This record gives sequence, structure tokens and C-alpha cells, in this order.
Amino acid sequence: VKARMSSPIRVVQVGLGPVGQMLTPFLLERPYLKLVGAVDIDPHKVGRDVGEVCRLDQKLNVKVVDGLDRLSKENADVALLTTTSYLSGVVPTLEQLAKLEWDVVSTCEELSYPWTRQPALAERIDAVARKHGISILSTGVNPGFLMDSWPITATSICRKVERIRIERIQDASQRRLPFQQKIGVGLSTDEFRARAASGKFGHVGLTESMQMIAARLGWKLNRTEDQIEPVLAEKDLDTALGHVKAGQAIGLQQIGKAFRGSDEIVTFVFRAALNQPDPADTLHVFGIPSFKVTIPGGIHGDIATCAVVTNAIPVVRGAAPGLRTMADLPPVGFCLEPGRIDHYQESRK
Amino acid sequence: VKARMSSPIRVVQVGLGPVGQMLTPFLLERPYLKLVGAVDIDPHKVGRDVGEVCRLDQKLNVKVVDGLDRLSKENADVALLTTTSYLSGVVPTLEQLAKLEWDVVSTCEELSYPWTRQPALAERIDAVARKHGISILSTGVNPGFLMDSWPITATSICRKVERIRIERIQDASQRRLPFQQKIGVGLSTDEFRARAASGKFGHVGLTESMQMIAARLGWKLNRTEDQIEPVLAEKDLDTALGHVKAGQAIGLQQIGKAFRGSDEIVTFVFRAALNQPDPADTLHVFGIPSFKVTIPGGIHGDIATCAVVTNAIPVVRGAAPGLRTMADLPPVGFCLEPGRIDHYQESRK
Repeated sequence: VKARMSSPIRVVQVGLGPVGQMLTPFLLERPYLKLVGAVDIDPHKVGRDVGEVCRLDQKLNVKVVDGLDRLSKENADVALLTTTSYLSGVVPTLEQLAKLEWDVVSTCEELSYPWTRQPALAERIDAVARKHGISILSTGVNPGFLMDSWPITATSICRKVERIRIERIQDASQRRLPFQQKIGVGLSTDEFRARAASGKFGHVGLTESMQMIAARLGWKLNRTEDQIEPVLAEKDLDTALGHVKAGQAIGLQQIGKAFRGSDEIVTFVFRAALNQPDPADTLHVFGIPSFKVTIPGGIHGDIATCAVVTNAIPVVRGAAPGLRTMADLPPVGFCLEPGRIDHYQESRK
Repeated sequence: VKARMSSPIRVVQVGLGPVGQMLTPFLLERPYLKLVGAVDIDPHKVGRDVGEVCRLDQKLNVKVVDGLDRLSKENADVALLTTTSYLSGVVPTLEQLAKLEWDVVSTCEELSYPWTRQPALAERIDAVARKHGISILSTGVNPGFLMDSWPITATSICRKVERIRIERIQDASQRRLPFQQKIGVGLSTDEFRARAASGKFGHVGLTESMQMIAARLGWKLNRTEDQIEPVLAEKDLDTALGHVKAGQAIGLQQIGKAFRGSDEIVTFVFRAALNQPDPADTLHVFGIPSFKVTIPGGIHGDIATCAVVTNAIPVVRGAAPGLRTMADLPPVGFCLEPGRIDHYQESRK
């Protein structure tokens, strides 16, 4: 059994790549969190102050170390793991973290719901978490919120759910350049296809979100699809990444589909491209009742991911040991200070 | 410790008034639920088949009895308590249900979050639930969803939340006559004020929803307000309840406000009146980010309440003993069949 919640909750960041660096200032704002350590393998970061690595205007008096073995069990309560999107990449780290007996909140997309796609790894992670009494959650805006826990919560008012459709239309024009590069701005269709064929292109996690919904609603799926295609420029245009010719990519669109029998019961449309006129996140629930939920303008993914991770910390601290999902835990609301902490504690074994 | 989840889950309805009667058909549709008993004190219902009392086209082979003492511990797993909106009215029944060792899902509005307003009763209910190893939850569309667990979930993506505003605008023209009577259609302003002064008029639960939000987000409230006023007819009109003159009520509007220091941090606008042109449920979150969530047309309250109660049953069966709230439990999604039941079970002590 984990110790009762300490105050402040001592946090170690594992991974100071783009997500980890964005996350740090969120942690500093919460009076009940204390950043006590940071790990990154990048030799340009090791030994430097986290505030400097994250280009903050303050030193944090926390030096980046090159491995978890530099830290000891007593140092911390929870680790924020932001190293990779892929499950296989986090397993060894999770095993180290379990031995340190720190709870884990991660942004690893494939870890958000690995039970269907990679059940052996899911069982292995779950077992080591239970053995050492820690709770592990992976979350973020998506997977974690927009296409799984948010629609699951919405269906609580349904007598019947026949089908779910979610559209996430993002205007990438306002996003940072690495994001624009990531979505393929300026690629020819051949280059786009080649990159797609590499398997490491596009948004990771549509499948995990579909499977989380299905597991929670009690739907047995026959199969899922996740297909990526370029969004093409209709005419030449100048972008922050240079001139893009008509017919070249201005971003990507991914379509996720889940089938129960021959029925397409989940449809995800994930589009991130330049010059999208009406960005929005829209959830359609078809059933009794049928209804639509719209967030005009859409949710800024980077802010939302860092916020969900930060807000999840007290919830994960109070969760039962094991590999948890956003569908198993109490709602991860914004948390100025953990209020009725006892309520969280009770859900612990 | 409660027994592990039985299948089917055996359900007793306590209260076959308007809500209880609406609820019955929802239960019959779920293969994992079995209605095994019903209690009501109305002598016109006692001894009759539940299907007949609920005007269904089938007999259910369950006879209404006049008290819980007619039923024994072994009969059931969970009770659905739909007798009253007021906390004092459910305490003796909850004590009986605890002794029967049945979990409870209720629609008693004041029970949805009684910790701030009626802490002594909340503690008493919580203690008896723990003593007998049962979990108690009160929920519905509101309180339970639209003005508490839904906005709490929405704030998971927030770096900061400064203020929450929720507008629930219902067009009562399409609703059943008892609902129209309940909201004061046809009353003069004097009659409306007299009824409001009785304290048993209007929507119950705005205060509980505000307090649930505040507790979960870590806001300490100085005070809350819940004020009711008539929505007046601008001209004479004919309604299903007869002729209504200009200046008479066509419904009600309730404004809930919660203050932290002098800041109004929660605002609820709850309007239910005839001829409302744009019914909708709208959530505004002000913070980082600020965003709006709209459900055009709005959610039908009766369907939603019965659905939330039905969907909550497997979640409550898996919860830790005690008085729970929608802010403490995993999301109550629609549930065709309880899927990863083990995940629910784990959150039990």
C-alpha cells in the first residue's frame, strides 16, 4: 500500500523533449506539486538546470540527470513519463519506476489503452505496477480526453448508443513549426505516402481511444481501421515553412473506424492542416437521445495535454495500484488544490 | 466487503412515483440487470404488478410491496431510490437499505453532494454505508451530470479555471403536463412568489452541483445563492394547461451563483419555460484555455436522468463503500454490458 498523500506531491520528470519542456511550467503553478528531479538522456541537457533546459526565466535548482538510477526511492512520489508514443519504448522505464515505487502519469499514446492491441505488454505492466503498489496512467488531450473519456462521459445520459462520431478539425496555421512539419506541410503526395508507410507518421492513439470506448461501453469490436491521407493545397501558397505548391500537402487527415459486426460504430476524423476555416471539436452521439456536442474553435492540443497530465496527478496518487485508464478513474478535473483527498484515497486497495 | 459482481445484477426499485415509473423500462432493456422487487407506499400501487403500475404492455411478475421489511437481504444487489428530492426524507430508507446490504443509486437531489450543506447527515449516511459495506450514489441529469460531473470533466484540459457558467435553457412546450405545472405555467406573479416562498418550488440541486464543483476543483466558497423568478408571458397565449394571460408565468428561471471571496466563480442559469426558441445546454469555461461546449437543443431531462441512474449501476456496484458522488467515481458511461468488470472491482476496498 502506498503512503497516504504527501504534501506537496514530489514530482520527477522523465523525458524533457518537446512535451516534457512544455509541461514543466504547468507543474510550477500548482502549490501542491514540487518538481524534485528530471531525467533525460540527451547529453546537451544532462547536468543543466531544468529551468534553463525549458527556457524558463528562472532556475529551478533541479539538475537533469541521465538515468533513473541516479535517483533514489525516497526522492519522489510520482514520475511524469514523456519519452515516446510507443508502448515497447516505455516498458523498461515503467519497470524501473515501479521498483522506485513512484506512481506514473505518462503521455505515451499506446499506453493509454493497451489491453486490446498489446495485451501481453499490458498485463506485464499491470503486474509490475501491482507488485510494487504503484498506479500508472497514460493520458493527454487525445488519447485521454477528446476521443475517449469525454465521449464516454457524454454517453452517461444515453438510454441507447448506436454510434459515435468525433471530428477534430485543427487549423495548423497557428501552431508551432515542428507541429507543421510533423503533419507533413510541403510534402508531395509521394513523399507523404512514403512517410506514412514508415509507420511513424501521423497521430498515434486513434485505435487506443476506439478500444477504450468499446471496452467501457461493452461493445465487442470485430476490427478497427486507422488510415492517413494528405490534405492537399488547392493552390500555391506561402507558409511559415516556405512555398507550398498546389497539390502538395498542407497537413494530414486520419480516419479511424471501429466495427461491431458489420456496423461502423465509431468514426474518428482527425484533421490537422493549414488554413482550416472552422476548427472545432465535435462529438456526435447517435442513439437515445441523439445529440451533438461542439467546442467551437477546438481545443489547443499542447495546452490540453499538459493540463490533463498535471490535473491527473492527484487522481493517480489516489488510484488503486495497477495500469489504470481514463475510463477507470474519477474525472480528472482541474485541481487548484486536492480537496477531499480522502475521497481519492478510498478508491485505493 | 461486498460480494463480487453477480450476473445479472438484481435490482429493487424503491419508489414508483413519476421518476420510478419512467425508470422501469430502462432497466428491462439491459441484459445484465434483473428487476426483482419494488416498494411504494401508495395503497393504489401495493399488490399490483410493476408492469401494470408503470403502464407497460407486459407483466413483470414483480408485485409492489409496501415496505422494505417485506424483502430480505438475499433478494437483491442494488436499490434504486426515487422517493424524494430532500435529504431528510431518504435517511431512514438509506439506513434500512444499508442493513439489507444493497448498494444504492438514488435520484434524491440533495443526496448528490450533501457534504457542505448538510454535513452531519452526510457523515451519518456515509458511516452507515461503510459499516454495512455498501456504496451510495445520487445522480441524474442535474444534479449528477450537466452542472457538475460534465463541467468537472471538461476542466481536465485546463491549465487554469477562473470561472464556470452553465446555461440550461429548456423549452417546456414539448414536455409532459405535470412538468409544465411544476414550473408554474399560468401562475400570477403573486401566486408564483407565494409558491417560491414555500421552499418546495423549482429545481432542487443547483447548490449541490456548485458545491460538488468547488470541492473537486479545490475552491473554497464563501457563499452560494439560488434564486427563482418567473418567466412571464409577453402576450396572451393558449397552452396545454389553458389560457395564459400576458404577465402570467410561462415557466421559471433559477440563477445559481457561487462566490469565492468576492468573485462569482460559478453561475448557473436554469430556465424551463414555454416557447423558448433556442433550447440548449451550454457550458462556458473561462481560464486557460477559455472555451464553450454546446449541446444544441439541450438534453431531455427525464430520459437523461433515467439513463444516468441505469448506467451508474455497474459503477456503483464496483465502488468503495460509503457515500459516493459523481465526482469520485469513474465516468458513468452508457453500458451495454459491464465490460472490464475487474476494473470496477479494483476500486473497492
